[in-house]
Formats: sequence, C-alpha cells, structure tokens
Amino acid sequence: MPQDVRFDLPFNTPVSPYLACARERHLRWVWDRGLVRSQAGFEEYRSWDLAQAAARTYPHASAADLSTLMNWFSLAFLFDDQFDVVRPDRMDRIAEVARELIVTPLRPAGTAPRVVCPITVAWAEVWEDLSQGMSLTWQTRFAASWGRFLVAHCEEVDLAGQGRAGTLGLEAYTALRRRTVGIHHSIDAGERSRAFEVPPAAMAHPLMERMRDLAADTIGFMNDVHSFERERRRGDGHNLIAVLQRERNCSWQEAIDEAHRMTTRCLEEYLVLEARIPQMCDELGLDAGERARVEMGVEAIQHWINGNYEWALTSGRYADKEGAVATAELAGRGSVDDLLTI
Amino acid sequence: MPQDVRFDLPFNTPVSPYLACARERHLRWVWDRGLVRSQAGFEEYRSWDLAQAAARTYPHASAADLSTLMNWFSLAFLFDDQFDVVRPDRMDRIAEVARELIVTPLRPAGTAPRVVCPITVAWAEVWEDLSQGMSLTWQTRFAASWGRFLVAHCEEVDLAGQGRAGTLGLEAYTALRRRTVGIHHSIDAGERSRAFEVPPAAMAHPLMERMRDLAADTIGFMNDVHSFERERRRGDGHNLIAVLQRERNCSWQEAIDEAHRMTTRCLEEYLVLEARIPQMCDELGLDAGERARVEMGVEAIQHWINGNYEWALTSGRYADKEGAVATAELAGRGSVDDLLTI
Repeated sequence: MPQDVRFDLPFNTPVSPYLACARERHLRWVWDRGLVRSQAGFEEYRSWDLAQAAARTYPHASAADLSTLMNWFSLAFLFDDQFDVVRPDRMDRIAEVARELIVTPLRPAGTAPRVVCPITVAWAEVWEDLSQGMSLTWQTRFAASWGRFLVAHCEEVDLAGQGRAGTLGLEAYTALRRRTVGIHHSIDAGERSRAFEVPPAAMAHPLMERMRDLAADTIGFMNDVHSFERERRRGDGHNLIAVLQRERNCSWQEAIDEAHRMTTRCLEEYLVLEARIPQMCDELGLDAGERARVEMGVEAIQHWINGNYEWALTSGRYADKEGAVATAELAGRGSVDDLLTI
Repeated sequence: MPQDVRFDLPFNTPVSPYLACARERHLRWVWDRGLVRSQAGFEEYRSWDLAQAAARTYPHASAADLSTLMNWFSLAFLFDDQFDVVRPDRMDRIAEVARELIVTPLRPAGTAPRVVCPITVAWAEVWEDLSQGMSLTWQTRFAASWGRFLVAHCEEVDLAGQGRAGTLGLEAYTALRRRTVGIHHSIDAGERSRAFEVPPAAMAHPLMERMRDLAADTIGFMNDVHSFERERRRGDGHNLIAVLQRERNCSWQEAIDEAHRMTTRCLEEYLVLEARIPQMCDELGLDAGERARVEMGVEAIQHWINGNYEWALTSGRYADKEGAVATAELAGRGSVDDLLTI
C-alpha cells in the first residue's frame, strides 16, 4: 500500500523536544477556534498528528512558536479538505476564502478578516504571530509564496468542480503540482521558526530558486505516493500516480514505480545543487554570518523533505478510514466538518 | 485652487520622447478593451492625460513598454473611481475585482482571470507584458506591493461604504494613505521600464525601505492637495486636507498650508536619506555594476516624485467638470462608465 512506500533520504533531521507539550496546547486551540466542529472531526484531525509534522519540519522552534506553527498547519490542511466532489457550487466560496487568506499577510498584522469563517479568523490570528520580528522582505516573500499556493489550490478545485481533475497531462500536472504542494512558503516559515533570514542576495540566486523548486517537486511527488489511497477513495484525480497510469496506460504498480523514480531523480538533482552552495556564497562575497544563515536556509529545506517524509509514513491522514470519516468519503465529501461558514 | 499649489522639488527629470506615439496607441487600446464605454467616458479619460504621467514617471521606457505602462495606469486609475457613494452595495463587487487583480501576478503570466470584467481582463494582458524578463524576486516584490495597495483601497472603499470615510484621525489616515497611494509598486515598475533590477540586498536595506515610504507619503500628500477639489465634489473624505481641517477645526486654507508643510517635511527627510545611499552601498560591499543599479533605483523614485507632480498640475483629472462627468459627480457616482460588469 503506497503509504508504506520508502524513499532513501540522505538526511538525518531532529525532532523538536517540545512536541508533546505543544501538541496538547495546539489541540485545545483547534477545538477552541472551531477548526473542528464535531467529535468525529476532532478525532480525525488528531489522528493526522500534524503536531508531529511541525515538530519534524521546524525542529528548532521555541515551544510557543511550535504551537503557532502547528496552528498554522491545522488551518492550511483543514482548508485543503473543504472541497466536496458532490458540491461543485462550493468552488466560489472556496475561492472567496482562499483570497481572504491571500490578502491577510498584505494587511497590517492584526487586522480582522473581511470574509469571516473559522479558517480566516484563525489565519489572521496566526499571521500576527508568524510575522512577528520578520523583515518586510521576508513578509513579502512569504506572502507571495503563500498566495501562489492558494491561487493554485483554487485552480485545482475549479478543475475538480468542472469534472476536469483527471484531464491534465504529465507536464501540466507537474507544473501545477509544484504550485499546489505549498512548499515554498513552508520553507520560508523555517526562517521564522529559528528567527533568522537567508540573505536576500542568496535567496534571489538561481541556484537557491532551483533548489526550492526541486524540494517542492520531491515533496509533492512523495506526498502523491503516500496519499494515493486516500485520494483515490475521495475521487481526487490530482495525483501523480493517477496521471502516470492514465497517460501511460500502465498498471497501478508500474505507475507507483515510475512516481518513485521521478521523486528520486528530483532529489538527486537537488543534492547536486546543494553541493554547490559554498561556491554560490563565494560568488556573492558573503561573510561568515551570511554563510551561516544560508546554511540554516538549506537546513530548513532538509527539515522539510525529511520531516514531512517521516511524518507521512505514519500519519492517520493517509490511513484507511472507518466511521464518520469513511461515510463522508463515500458520500464524496471532503471533510466531516464544514469550516467555510460561520 | 489646490490643483495649482506649487511645491519646490529639487529634481529635474526627463520626459519620454515616445509620449505622442505611445499616447495614440494607448488611447486606441483603452477603447478597444472596453475600459471606457461611452464617448463621455472616453473624453473624460483622455483629459486626464495619463499618457503624460507615464512618460514622465517612466521616461526611459521603450516606445512599446511605455504603451504597456500607460495601459496599466489606465486600468488602475479607472478602477480607483469605480466606487459610487450612492451604491454602497458595490463594496463587495469592488473587493471581488480587487482580489482578482491581486492574484493575477501570483499565477503563471497569461492565465485568464477567474473574475471577469474589463478591468481584470485588461490587467491579465498587461501583467503578461509587465512581468516579461523580470526575475522571480522582482515579481514577488511587485505582487506584494500591488496587493498591499489594492487591499488598502478596499479598506478605503469599505470605510466610505459604511459612511465612515470622514472618521479617521490624522495618524490613522496617514498610515492608510501610505498604503492607498500605490507608490511602492509604481517604483517597482520603474525597474521594468529600464530592464534592470535593484540588487536584493540594497532593496532590503532599512534605508531604502524608509526612502520608499517617504516617497509614498510625499506623493500621497501632494496628490491630496492637487485632488482636493475633485474629492470634495465627489464626497470623498479620504484626503489629508479634509482630515486636518476636521481634526484641527481650522480653515480650509490653514489645512492646505499644513498639508503643504507636511509634504515638505517628508520630502526633506527623503533627501537626507538619499544622500546616505553611497554609504549604504559601501556597507553592503556592492561592486560598480550593483551601485549603478542602486542609483537607477533612486532615479526611479525621483522620476515618480517629480513626474507625478508635473503631471498633476495640469491633468484634467483634477480640474472642474462639465457635462456628463459633472452630472455623474453630482449624482454621487464615481465614474461615467461601469467597468465592473461584463
């Protein structure tokens, strides 16, 4: 079963020592903010263990910041599931909420949302914390990364709503996947988690840009392998395995094998580029402090590739479902709870 | 009358030699794209002479690029006028269109808009040109500057729609004005107009950030002086003179004088900071090529401060109105033509 598929990752990344205490605080917050609305929704959410994902992808965050990052994960993942295959009329509401999420980091932190639902209210609160202490340059980069992700998510929802989810060819799919996976802003948040910033000149360098794209592809493809069963049950055709199987008219196993090879190729290219980082620092004439911050920026990418992988292998998000969640899936519903209304 | 008020600006900036030919091409484009829909709307638009504004603020653009920049001005200025005081129900449509304009630069260039009206269709076309040849870093910065402006514009419209336009104190007003004036992205476009980019490290420096904010304040306050009569006729309380008069309970002339002094103080602080640019370049260890690009970035600011000023003194946009425009103003309507519907 694809959730068990192993990849050979050359990183050994830490896990936050604050996982347990931050998780408890986070779960209370999710309930208090109405991000789950039923007991079944809460149990399902808890089984995903996004707290572990945050503790692995942001291992150096303080206890308080780790809670903030978990809170952010919750609203992003829960929003991701709000599209119901049986309710294409939800497309416009999803776009409206997504656009509210996009503009939040473009307003002074702490501004109340214009479009109100649990997801948008939670994000306004989280952004106030997440932007704390970060430069305008970082906020600009995060806002654009986040906005590109959300607008791509809407395109994916629109395709599904129009019954065209399963129509993309491999090239169009991988281009869209790089945008829907949401890795660029996730890596940006790595800087916030350790209160540092990659020097702007390094961040703008083509090497770093390409490394970020390759990390996004690697994680997106791995996620497609691990989430394949879940997405097949939910009728979600936005998955590399489904695209490969259809385009090549091959067996599922062959499609899984090819997705695995594609993932490995992205990772290998990423590693080749990573080895050129010292050369880039020379070229840019960076001093020791700047080099250290570039190195931490690279670690943020590694934490994401490896942390997300370790989490996905065991997360309940991609496991077989029973009870209310299975019923919702069978009915073509994206989630147990509706989070787009007040 | 405030449109005649003079400021003492220490810049002498050029005007594009392509003004006349680009203007003709631009006016045809505006008509063809439905950005004016009536003869009266067209005559009013032509009287603004935004073509001159573009030729002064982007004097080094090629003839083709100058047309693109004029086209961009047209949709931004025309959108700015789409709020009718008598139709507060337009607030939501304005927000919807604004959010479409915000997400356009976050999608692959050339993507069709999701919310369709003349303004959004025109912007998708213009963005495809405007983003041409520019780095991801520039596109990110432009997208965030543009998004911050548009989301602030919505706040202004919401205040007006709720009858609260005249309730802001001086501090809140000037903070909002810095965001609604739309100068940050206008300066960003200066790089596109000469096909260069300010080095990222310089752009992220606090000195440059502060200079950009002061340029925005200077231009916003000057614009409030020059547009005061127009805004008073239109019942638009989003104007420094109106805020000062109300807050200080002084005469209109005293308010105009104070607005003039505030403008001059911003400009003076800007000039003090501008003189520190060579020192900033030393601190960042920039080479000769990078220094030249910083210098061009500073010129882009000067072109905007001076070019906008010279244009505003004579633009028909701020002049007394007759005919259909006067009728629309008297009826509390923001514009002759409705551009938010298909």
